[in-house]
Amino acid sequence: MRNLSCLVFSAVVGALPAIAVADNNPVDEKWWPSEFGANDQAGATNWITPQKRLEAVKLVKKGEVATLGMPYHARTPLFPGRLYSLTIPGGGVPTHDLAWSGDSYRQTFMDELVTAQIGQVGTQFDSLAHPMIQIKGKDAKGWKDGNYFYNGVRLEDVGGPYGMKKLGVENVGSFFTRAIVIDLVKLKGGNLPIGYPISMKDYRDALKMAGIQDARQGDIVLFRTGWNDLWRGNMEKTQAQAIADNAAFNSGGPGISPEVCDHLASLKVAMVGADNWGIEPYDFTGNGQWPTKFEDVKEWAYCHMNLTVRRGIYLFENLDLKDLGERGPAEVLFSWAPLKLVGATGSPGNPIATW
Amino acid sequence: MRNLSCLVFSAVVGALPAIAVADNNPVDEKWWPSEFGANDQAGATNWITPQKRLEAVKLVKKGEVATLGMPYHARTPLFPGRLYSLTIPGGGVPTHDLAWSGDSYRQTFMDELVTAQIGQVGTQFDSLAHPMIQIKGKDAKGWKDGNYFYNGVRLEDVGGPYGMKKLGVENVGSFFTRAIVIDLVKLKGGNLPIGYPISMKDYRDALKMAGIQDARQGDIVLFRTGWNDLWRGNMEKTQAQAIADNAAFNSGGPGISPEVCDHLASLKVAMVGADNWGIEPYDFTGNGQWPTKFEDVKEWAYCHMNLTVRRGIYLFENLDLKDLGERGPAEVLFSWAPLKLVGATGSPGNPIATW
Amino acid sequence: MRNLSCLVFSAVVGALPAIAVADNNPVDEKWWPSEFGANDQAGATNWITPQKRLEAVKLVKKGEVATLGMPYHARTPLFPGRLYSLTIPGGGVPTHDLAWSGDSYRQTFMDELVTAQIGQVGTQFDSLAHPMIQIKGKDAKGWKDGNYFYNGVRLEDVGGPYGMKKLGVENVGSFFTRAIVIDLVKLKGGNLPIGYPISMKDYRDALKMAGIQDARQGDIVLFRTGWNDLWRGNMEKTQAQAIADNAAFNSGGPGISPEVCDHLASLKVAMVGADNWGIEPYDFTGNGQWPTKFEDVKEWAYCHMNLTVRRGIYLFENLDLKDLGERGPAEVLFSWAPLKLVGATGSPGNPIATW
Amino acid sequence: MRNLSCLVFSAVVGALPAIAVADNNPVDEKWWPSEFGANDQAGATNWITPQKRLEAVKLVKKGEVATLGMPYHARTPLFPGRLYSLTIPGGGVPTHDLAWSGDSYRQTFMDELVTAQIGQVGTQFDSLAHPMIQIKGKDAKGWKDGNYFYNGVRLEDVGGPYGMKKLGVENVGSFFTRAIVIDLVKLKGGNLPIGYPISMKDYRDALKMAGIQDARQGDIVLFRTGWNDLWRGNMEKTQAQAIADNAAFNSGGPGISPEVCDHLASLKVAMVGADNWGIEPYDFTGNGQWPTKFEDVKEWAYCHMNLTVRRGIYLFENLDLKDLGERGPAEVLFSWAPLKLVGATGSPGNPIATW
Repeated sequence: MRNLSCLVFSAVVGALPAIAVADNNPVDEKWWPSEFGANDQAGATNWITPQKRLEAVKLVKKGEVATLGMPYHARTPLFPGRLYSLTIPGGGVPTHDLAWSGDSYRQTFMDELVTAQIGQVGTQFDSLAHPMIQIKGKDAKGWKDGNYFYNGVRLEDVGGPYGMKKLGVENVGSFFTRAIVIDLVKLKGGNLPIGYPISMKDYRDALKMAGIQDARQGDIVLFRTGWNDLWRGNMEKTQAQAIADNAAFNSGGPGISPEVCDHLASLKVAMVGADNWGIEPYDFTGNGQWPTKFEDVKEWAYCHMNLTVRRGIYLFENLDLKDLGERGPAEVLFSWAPLKLVGATGSPGNPIATW
Repeated sequence: MRNLSCLVFSAVVGALPAIAVADNNPVDEKWWPSEFGANDQAGATNWITPQKRLEAVKLVKKGEVATLGMPYHARTPLFPGRLYSLTIPGGGVPTHDLAWSGDSYRQTFMDELVTAQIGQVGTQFDSLAHPMIQIKGKDAKGWKDGNYFYNGVRLEDVGGPYGMKKLGVENVGSFFTRAIVIDLVKLKGGNLPIGYPISMKDYRDALKMAGIQDARQGDIVLFRTGWNDLWRGNMEKTQAQAIADNAAFNSGGPGISPEVCDHLASLKVAMVGADNWGIEPYDFTGNGQWPTKFEDVKEWAYCHMNLTVRRGIYLFENLDLKDLGERGPAEVLFSWAPLKLVGATGSPGNPIATW
Repeated sequence: MRNLSCLVFSAVVGALPAIAVADNNPVDEKWWPSEFGANDQAGATNWITPQKRLEAVKLVKKGEVATLGMPYHARTPLFPGRLYSLTIPGGGVPTHDLAWSGDSYRQTFMDELVTAQIGQVGTQFDSLAHPMIQIKGKDAKGWKDGNYFYNGVRLEDVGGPYGMKKLGVENVGSFFTRAIVIDLVKLKGGNLPIGYPISMKDYRDALKMAGIQDARQGDIVLFRTGWNDLWRGNMEKTQAQAIADNAAFNSGGPGISPEVCDHLASLKVAMVGADNWGIEPYDFTGNGQWPTKFEDVKEWAYCHMNLTVRRGIYLFENLDLKDLGERGPAEVLFSWAPLKLVGATGSPGNPIATW
Repeated sequence: MRNLSCLVFSAVVGALPAIAVADNNPVDEKWWPSEFGANDQAGATNWITPQKRLEAVKLVKKGEVATLGMPYHARTPLFPGRLYSLTIPGGGVPTHDLAWSGDSYRQTFMDELVTAQIGQVGTQFDSLAHPMIQIKGKDAKGWKDGNYFYNGVRLEDVGGPYGMKKLGVENVGSFFTRAIVIDLVKLKGGNLPIGYPISMKDYRDALKMAGIQDARQGDIVLFRTGWNDLWRGNMEKTQAQAIADNAAFNSGGPGISPEVCDHLASLKVAMVGADNWGIEPYDFTGNGQWPTKFEDVKEWAYCHMNLTVRRGIYLFENLDLKDLGERGPAEVLFSWAPLKLVGATGSPGNPIATW
């Protein structure tokens, strides 16, 4: 039990969280049942207690807010294979045809029709039914071949054409808790470059710069990298520019290194969020200082595996942290709950930060 | 004119702002530009000030929360013509096909694909681009024939196949403010019957019962009628029962009477919410005590016209107010922001009430 | 090859239908590679040769046609879980915004947006990637657990979130061949009742009545039962009537018995079509003369398993055979090719019968 | 009737194409009711008579076929704003969960879910409810402002959110008639360049080369330009190559000049088809020999306006004419009927050419 011993050690030495990336192999540890019980489907929101909420509202001192959702539109960059379509049914007339209220006026309406991988486009929250660790050929260690979600739930047992039978996003509950902002843009004096792996040193420096304490159990940690400035304002650009910027955005990005994710895991935070598309750092162009050509990626989605699958800690991607970073403090009240899309793998969102 | 006398009275007593729309005919009053300016697209969220937010957080005394969204699923009752479909792409395998991290494990994922009138199904928030007043044959009074949104914006000028060019839900901002609960279920000792029009007396009795003050500018007023208990738990019922209950739900419901909506308009609240499908009372069965056969409805959607179109006050339908009503107080902090679906007529949601 | 020997025998004795239902167990026979080769993805269209086509055009003597597709609309009865949605994007204006050609006119357009299990709603053609035989626990007989398509292709090997990697409907080719109509409505003097299993005697009687020879290799056999008269004209009915009729339609229907499907298999026809929703007979109401309560069905989809999966013979469901039956002869030229929806499990259609 | 007199004249002089493009202004002629009656919704399929069909089958001499549909897939080039999505619901398991037939086997199924402007993507047939001529400011000539379809039907009168109330593709009927192939690829010895306008001389040269007579009333005329070779085989290319080729495809293409469309109109053909995306020639790059920068296009969609809107003659775009062109003769039997998508503006298709 490498991880645990490691964490025990960190508890002993008190200050340094423990990292053990080297051989952090999910087949060598049976990582369930979770600490919330074998049947738990809510994961890390269990750590958000009434006490946490009362402490969080104390952060509201000015009554200012920032919304953290990016807009969803036809130029939202998408992971290959996903789509976002919004149309306004109408065909030349309003949607409903109700009686006239007077001789000259009546109520009419318009709707919109959306088709999208709605929990996995743009600003997106991953439920526990999104990432899996697929394991094969380890019968000897007690694993059945298959795709394992949080708490040992297997896709092969809970998958279904019309929604997951377990761990759907309707089980999450809500986030009304303290969030801290790790503002790398402020720390570094500009947006982080492609592939940049945010290190523990960066993390500590950002805490120090902000003059705040490290995250505690049930908190949310938000990483501002500046990366989604690339697709900010896409609707105002030329189509060619938007396409080019989306391609650049999708080609990688700065992200959270394994050591930081392991640290956050040890703190038992409720959620980790970022303004990039996938939490972890990548550079598929291979042209930056930290190249990770697509075909050369050694370990995909380390934080997804080790925060969400193994511990039930949530991830929120493609958040808009610019306004908050520019106007707000490093500690805010974060309030949001995912849409109760029964059986869904995620949820779109527009959380509120208040200070 | 019941409405007017009420409003005139309020004008006399001096505390409440007065509304007086001749005979409340939207063609006899030019109701724009709005008080927020001719180009305003945010409407009543303008009333939610930092001061409002600071007052609202003071309502959080226990750190308790309730989420106010109903689940979205295949048995969510739908307005005719609308749909909600969630499928899990996969075809037998996970969505992505990434490299193996070790010899025996790798990261895999699942997505969901949703097609829905996403802002107008289940728990739904109406943006200012949803309801319109259609006017025809009033050229003499200066009206061009057409469908008028808030602030005099015409569908004919801003409509589009891929989203509204103005008033889309991305302009709304956020709701972080005080909400009061008008709990008719508690007041009446049970769920309201079909067609029941909530009166000013009911409204005042509910305030009195709860021992709270009336709503103030920028507040949210939530009406608990019990009506969507009809489709609560649909996924656990037989299919036939769910179909029957959805039909009963769609056949009408208790709702807010015009006099109460006019009162709320005069208070300049930011939003009105309810646990029915359409805010106003209807009984299309014609079998209840307050029958309004579909073909006999005199004035459709009074509150939509007079709160949203004419004043920019938002409506939130199909909220889940059961848990809040049963566990919470009548005054709570309400925090939520709609998805920034560019050009959309509404948003799904799962607001948080905290106390 | 139990089936074949059995069928040879029946050919010899002439009168007895070739039935081997009792132990017609797909785990006892290794039914691939198909006679068209281990890599074949086209199945029974291989039997439609130039010679077949030349013979088929000789059936065109009057130049009359009938189209065999039912309309697709919001009241098309659907298998549970499936949907059909057609909307006209527009939001009050045409879809495109092109320059004016003159000072007073220009080209405009409208589109439609469809979301549907497009190959499996209404008039639907099943590709070889639709029906599977799932087999488990037969390792001893050489079967890996899994879902087997035609030619031994396993879902576990070819499934994918964005389309099947093999056997997609784009591989089918075309049907331009002789079709014969087994008109049970004419034979019985009315539409067949729910659950009615069309027998070999019915089949032979219908051939005799029509004065035509039995189907030959590469032919198409169409069964007219009258069942989809239930949803004919749904758009002109009241909503309640349409809902009731769709429910009746979905509750079962007359269909083709196993003995007839085995016979058709022995003839090596290219396709079997019918005007019911699922080829085989069912009565889920349990109230008819041939009750098969849903929970009591012994063998689902016998013809799907034994024609399509085991032999690559195609099925076409929910055809409209009324006009053809009433105006046309029992032998026609059938011309149609499925949409080349890459990786799809089926195709919608509107075949042409010409005589 | 300017056009007609003009066309009569051209018939007399024999050599000159009947062109009156200069002032071919749809506001100067009242082009309805159509010759098929004021209530006709079928247009040019009225010209396909039994006699036409009997003549057409005589063209089948070898029993050979070619299908004329391009594949529909994720790399099909799309008009901006349109989408094509096919997913396989499943989430790791088959779509249905039926009882086991034996102890070890049962029937299972897979579906596909498609979202697309299904009648306006890839190989697409335009119904009479697709193109309109918008007219404004011509009250003096008896026109109400609005968008006019075939037979004077106005979008403002028949539009609707869930389908057109008139002229939907379900009214078309079928095409079982003679088609001639105008093979410009053979004529010119290669694919036509971007923007190339096919002239009457080209048209006559192609007829002569093929040794066939000109089209007659009720015939179909297919133009092979080679343009959609650009996206042929997209699924086998790199993603970057497919994106580049789709962009090139969408940037314009060779097409049918106004003079040829006027000629075809005079012949009263039933349909005109081509292997480009939009029938008419364009070069939005502006770099070719026949540049038509998007912002400089003088008259959009001349053939759409003058064949479909004014005369009810159908257009079929993005056909695959390569196989037919390479293997088949210049005269074939064309058999196809559009999907009966009620209220739709078009239909996908895969017609069959037989010879």
